[in-house]
Amino acid sequence: MRIARIQTAAGPQHAVESDGTWHHITDPFEESLRYTGGATTHSEATFLAPVTPAVVLGIGHNRTLNDHSLPIQAWHKSVHTVAGPGDAIVAARDRGTVHAEGELAVVIGKTATSLTAENALEHVLGYTCVNDVTNVDQNAVDERNFQGKAGVNYTPLGPWIETELLDPEQAGIDVYVNGTAKANSGTFNLPSTVVECLVYVTSWLTLQPGDVVMTGAPGTAVPVEPGERVDIAVEGIGTLSSIVA
Amino acid sequence: MRIARIQTAAGPQHAVESDGTWHHITDPFEESLRYTGGATTHSEATFLAPVTPAVVLGIGHNRTLNDHSLPIQAWHKSVHTVAGPGDAIVAARDRGTVHAEGELAVVIGKTATSLTAENALEHVLGYTCVNDVTNVDQNAVDERNFQGKAGVNYTPLGPWIETELLDPEQAGIDVYVNGTAKANSGTFNLPSTVVECLVYVTSWLTLQPGDVVMTGAPGTAVPVEPGERVDIAVEGIGTLSSIVA
Repeated sequence: MRIARIQTAAGPQHAVESDGTWHHITDPFEESLRYTGGATTHSEATFLAPVTPAVVLGIGHNRTLNDHSLPIQAWHKSVHTVAGPGDAIVAARDRGTVHAEGELAVVIGKTATSLTAENALEHVLGYTCVNDVTNVDQNAVDERNFQGKAGVNYTPLGPWIETELLDPEQAGIDVYVNGTAKANSGTFNLPSTVVECLVYVTSWLTLQPGDVVMTGAPGTAVPVEPGERVDIAVEGIGTLSSIVA
Repeated sequence: MRIARIQTAAGPQHAVESDGTWHHITDPFEESLRYTGGATTHSEATFLAPVTPAVVLGIGHNRTLNDHSLPIQAWHKSVHTVAGPGDAIVAARDRGTVHAEGELAVVIGKTATSLTAENALEHVLGYTCVNDVTNVDQNAVDERNFQGKAGVNYTPLGPWIETELLDPEQAGIDVYVNGTAKANSGTFNLPSTVVECLVYVTSWLTLQPGDVVMTGAPGTAVPVEPGERVDIAVEGIGTLSSIVA
């Protein structure tokens, strides 16, 4: 099932897709979804970030495809950076190279504390694509991941949440710039599994419905320039497109 | 002027103090405050965290009274850790020493981007006390400040916002454990001024009304144990009290 958040005349509205139509729902986190009766056709839908998280976490891994020297760690990204599909990423000027990073994002569905390998995925609402935009040259003076990660619309999220992703540990991730493939990888190249990320994070912090965990870039960091279009395609979910301004 | 957020039968309510009574207001961020006509006497008021920030930032300084080797940096603390006066800090068990850290917190009043030394303080609503509780032994494996800072109620905030603090750069900060003074310092011992912190942060991230910047602990980190009461007293504001559970 796909859950989106779409723009309507009455404001943002969560909706579930069926046969090319987005049927409006009251709350994506309820056990039994309630339909309002409203609907938007797919071609008329303007997609917003599918959730408005209180917490967005990134994962620093510790093995191949990542140069991080410490055990798995998490870090907070500002929720002010969350953007929808199509929103323009405002690339920082005179602050070095800007990277798009294609990642699988986990959307928490139920309050999650001290999860185990057995119950972790039961607390997940679903998965979406995320572009963890980064001023990569700041890393040398930014061990806390603040100034590299704080730009306007630096966290495009969407286009929707897929609740039935077949295997989040085996999802292909491709990154395109102006339609040209620049990276081809997947969550199978991540040093830690999605489950390991959730077990680690919730051993320290209780996550709430709508919180987002970005699982890391498995060789999917690609430099981008103003004027370019970047697409993050995650297998089984869809494609998140953004323009770099 | 003091602005608090207090518990009422109708839910949380912002209020302004006058002659020992808290007069309810609709929105502390409006240019002209609007009074609802409701009021709560001081002795009957239960104080909550005075704001519900979307972003809470800490500051890593770079000079004396701090062992940080890099230039000034900021880091995000989970908003799930924000707590009110009197809420019990749930000290992590078997994860090393837990520190209370008494700090001056800046509450943003207006959207703040690329502030200058001249206009920074115009974007501040006021100041409150914060206890930046930390699992200090995690620092060696936690360069992103996640697992040391993510515990339940690890960010007590309050008891109210003082909008007319005489000089935020000269505010004394005292920390008491079970009524005994354990640290005596002030913002005058911070390596960067409040203004410098705001200029730095907003050069990278646009802050919104209600966001909180914790200005750092100027030698005000004190180990605490379950069962103890910790008081953070900031001169010109008041005292923030918490029990360690």
